Amino acid sequence: MYQEKSSDNGGSMRHQLRRIIFGTDTKLGRYFDIGLMVCIILSVALVFLDTVASIHEQYGEIISILEWGFTFIFTLEYVLRLYCSAHPVRYARSFYGVVDLLSVMPSYLALFFPGASFTLVIRILRLFRIFRVFKLLRYLSEGNVLLRAMLQSGRKVFIFFFSVSLIVMVLSAVMYVVEGPENGFTSIPKSIYWTIVTITTVGYGDITPGTNLGQAIAALTMLLGYSIIAIPTGILTAEISQEISRSKDLRRCSNCLKTGHENDALFCDHCGGELEREL
Amino acid sequence: MYQEKSSDNGGSMRHQLRRIIFGTDTKLGRYFDIGLMVCIILSVALVFLDTVASIHEQYGEIISILEWGFTFIFTLEYVLRLYCSAHPVRYARSFYGVVDLLSVMPSYLALFFPGASFTLVIRILRLFRIFRVFKLLRYLSEGNVLLRAMLQSGRKVFIFFFSVSLIVMVLSAVMYVVEGPENGFTSIPKSIYWTIVTITTVGYGDITPGTNLGQAIAALTMLLGYSIIAIPTGILTAEISQEISRSKDLRRCSNCLKTGHENDALFCDHCGGELEREL
Amino acid sequence: MYQEKSSDNGGSMRHQLRRIIFGTDTKLGRYFDIGLMVCIILSVALVFLDTVASIHEQYGEIISILEWGFTFIFTLEYVLRLYCSAHPVRYARSFYGVVDLLSVMPSYLALFFPGASFTLVIRILRLFRIFRVFKLLRYLSEGNVLLRAMLQSGRKVFIFFFSVSLIVMVLSAVMYVVEGPENGFTSIPKSIYWTIVTITTVGYGDITPGTNLGQAIAALTMLLGYSIIAIPTGILTAEISQEISRSKDLRRCSNCLKTGHENDALFCDHCGGELEREL
Amino acid sequence: MYQEKSSDNGGSMRHQLRRIIFGTDTKLGRYFDIGLMVCIILSVALVFLDTVASIHEQYGEIISILEWGFTFIFTLEYVLRLYCSAHPVRYARSFYGVVDLLSVMPSYLALFFPGASFTLVIRILRLFRIFRVFKLLRYLSEGNVLLRAMLQSGRKVFIFFFSVSLIVMVLSAVMYVVEGPENGFTSIPKSIYWTIVTITTVGYGDITPGTNLGQAIAALTMLLGYSIIAIPTGILTAEISQEISRSKDLRRCSNCLKTGHENDALFCDHCGGELEREL
Repeated sequence: MYQEKSSDNGGSMRHQLRRIIFGTDTKLGRYFDIGLMVCIILSVALVFLDTVASIHEQYGEIISILEWGFTFIFTLEYVLRLYCSAHPVRYARSFYGVVDLLSVMPSYLALFFPGASFTLVIRILRLFRIFRVFKLLRYLSEGNVLLRAMLQSGRKVFIFFFSVSLIVMVLSAVMYVVEGPENGFTSIPKSIYWTIVTITTVGYGDITPGTNLGQAIAALTMLLGYSIIAIPTGILTAEISQEISRSKDLRRCSNCLKTGHENDALFCDHCGGELEREL
Repeated sequence: MYQEKSSDNGGSMRHQLRRIIFGTDTKLGRYFDIGLMVCIILSVALVFLDTVASIHEQYGEIISILEWGFTFIFTLEYVLRLYCSAHPVRYARSFYGVVDLLSVMPSYLALFFPGASFTLVIRILRLFRIFRVFKLLRYLSEGNVLLRAMLQSGRKVFIFFFSVSLIVMVLSAVMYVVEGPENGFTSIPKSIYWTIVTITTVGYGDITPGTNLGQAIAALTMLLGYSIIAIPTGILTAEISQEISRSKDLRRCSNCLKTGHENDALFCDHCGGELEREL
Repeated sequence: MYQEKSSDNGGSMRHQLRRIIFGTDTKLGRYFDIGLMVCIILSVALVFLDTVASIHEQYGEIISILEWGFTFIFTLEYVLRLYCSAHPVRYARSFYGVVDLLSVMPSYLALFFPGASFTLVIRILRLFRIFRVFKLLRYLSEGNVLLRAMLQSGRKVFIFFFSVSLIVMVLSAVMYVVEGPENGFTSIPKSIYWTIVTITTVGYGDITPGTNLGQAIAALTMLLGYSIIAIPTGILTAEISQEISRSKDLRRCSNCLKTGHENDALFCDHCGGELEREL
Repeated sequence: MYQEKSSDNGGSMRHQLRRIIFGTDTKLGRYFDIGLMVCIILSVALVFLDTVASIHEQYGEIISILEWGFTFIFTLEYVLRLYCSAHPVRYARSFYGVVDLLSVMPSYLALFFPGASFTLVIRILRLFRIFRVFKLLRYLSEGNVLLRAMLQSGRKVFIFFFSVSLIVMVLSAVMYVVEGPENGFTSIPKSIYWTIVTITTVGYGDITPGTNLGQAIAALTMLLGYSIIAIPTGILTAEISQEISRSKDLRRCSNCLKTGHENDALFCDHCGGELEREL
């Protein structure tokens, strides 16, 4: 539809790439976005599953290979974005530029600590890999056509669940690093279970933080979670209120056409005409 | 009131049966519905009680006999519905058709695994029997005269409690099968206790899921339960808001007839006349 | 103010007594009411404290004597109410008549089981003594002048806390009888602690029901408590909503007198005049 | 701007001091306020950290010296306030006068109990030192210019969090004194963790009150916390309701200018003109 003349072939290719990578208005651009989303979700899930001891033992090798595959994909993505961006420095300094870098750095940094099999440094580096989930934020912006189609309805609910998931994942990873297996946080999936038990205020107490730092983060989790989880109640209440006043507006006397009758009114309070029974 | 001429006697009987089984406008039809409801509730209660070890030991034989009785009743119901339905294939493929089939299948399938006294297969088959509760959904539809009379008032509250009960029952049965007695889910009644402790976010921690799958389902239970249980707060708040604005409308100055005074106003803000004390 | 001629002296005394006991418009009547309220609260507190082992050992004798004192007072009250009521039979059959009888019966019935020092019968009889709290319901009725003065403001909040207290007390006594010391319910004060831990959905799990019946009652407690405790949220939300729309009405443009400006508006949206800063 | 002639030099100095200490309209006055705020927060944090066994062992000496430094600062502040106040007696009897006195008394009183290293008296005296947090209340009053600038937006949220923090701190200190290390309340930071676990109704049960008094305070904490924490839900709901009705007002038909269309309406219900899509 819209065509731009570029002086040389390289510039044209850069421009084409930019439309695919940064834009969503071409078929290839949309495929690129969907592919990347799937990669992000799979790679984060892999980081989480790798912390489960039994999975690590059995599939450690495969996960390691897949992990390097994802690192390669995200590195390629980062290099391409840098290459075809109109303002490479501005991109590198932007929130998404930093997130894109942080999502590949840990894997390379881990090469410098080869002897340590499960030290704190490695565990924290592994944690930083889950920063990849923030790459997903890119797809939440208003202008994104893909998301718009997906979220025609139920937008608020989706954004709420996405935000909660993001918070749960980050908190779970942090608590896994801080508390570790000795306090029951044996893997990130177990840590996610603990986080959900905590933010929904269920609080079984089968897994509880043992360190001071862990208890401080847990206290923050509770306050944060409590505030966030109050949102659905608010949305629901507001919508029920709207529904009630709307249904009142709909009750119209067939005699004098007056509206706004109470839901349990049987006669029109203006002319006394009988009202139709509410369904 | 409404009479339909059918060409042959069999068609007439089929038609009569259809009015009884699918309709609610005849006395026999209503008796049929009430009887079936009672059977569904009793049979589900039986499935639940049978999981309690002490009850199973003492009354296992009687429960087994009753169980086959209910299976016979529901089989007869299914066959009759197939026979007298205007579109048997459409019925068999409909949601209720599938539910009706699923509610009798497990009992027959269990005959093929006679040696296994308490294996996972049997336990899952037993679980599927509680699909019978979904048969109750049929009585929740708008057109049902019986329910309408029952629920003239408090409709919203009833539907809320019914939905919660349904979710609690299904989740309890699933957790009983997934976790089993080794993690404290010794029977479905105990599992129901755990589910209520969880969805109300009380979370004692005396019974907690031990398996990974169980913890995942528990996390879902919390999120689901949390959302569902926010509903009464919403309904209540909306109704209190309505009540407040209604009571404001009712405060009318006897002097100038202006309404809409605040609940704690002592004088009319239009003419200064004293207002009657609020009750 | 209002004087009634009675044919004989006895009738006049009965009538006087009736005004004191049933009415609240005389000074003596009000003293009677206050005295009775204090007696009810003290006697229920006594029943609760008596279940604490250490208190029972040390002060058992004194509590027993006080208990008989209260029983005497309530017996006297019951006899007087029967004597001076205009319709003794109607009173005896009324809700308050039954409550008044139930509040003295257990003490007399306990005399028939002298050998049993701490059997279930005695424990249930002791439980029934807390039915005395229902005597307080009498003072909640609309017409009561005494209460009206006490509750001029904060009525809703008081009724809410009174209802919750009543439910907590009854549930605590029931759980104490059902579960008993072997499951951690060593006394009614401890049982009250458990009930509050449960209905606020805190659920520590330091005391949990061990019997099937106890778990069923606990599940009901959670659902009941959850519904009841949603009420303050509802009231609060409705009042904040009112406050916001009221403060909007108060923002009046000093130029064109238009009201209803948003709280964060700086200029009148009708004439463009600057609005005063919101406090 | 406003200048006051004073008869003698001492009076002028007193007046100057008063403007600095009680007022906020001078530069020095604002520095004084900020400095005092920092001292209050640091000194309360010190009291809390001193209860952690490992910190007390290692840094006990330094904390003791800092503690006396803060005591000196607050004593100086109290004396200066008494000296330069226009009505010293009225100040001494006011809420803030009493709080200012209570915030230095415990340190001096502790000198009279030198032998007891960790008795209940000392522990309660230490508790009273946290009354210093109430000194912060002074900065919450409407007239304070400093706070006003800080809280231009998000006022309600800040006051809510400040109140909750105050309640949490006081309750934590009380529970620490009442329960002590033998019931798991080994330090005030640990006690704060317990309080947050309790008021957010999470209730792990890893730390639970063991004494009767502790359980009574815990029950009050739950009820109090439950009421307080309902406030954000209320504020949020009210604001979402406002937002919905505001967005309805904003939907204006470009044809007939009618407003108030439902958020999901596609056509104007007055003239049938197509409405712009909602963003």
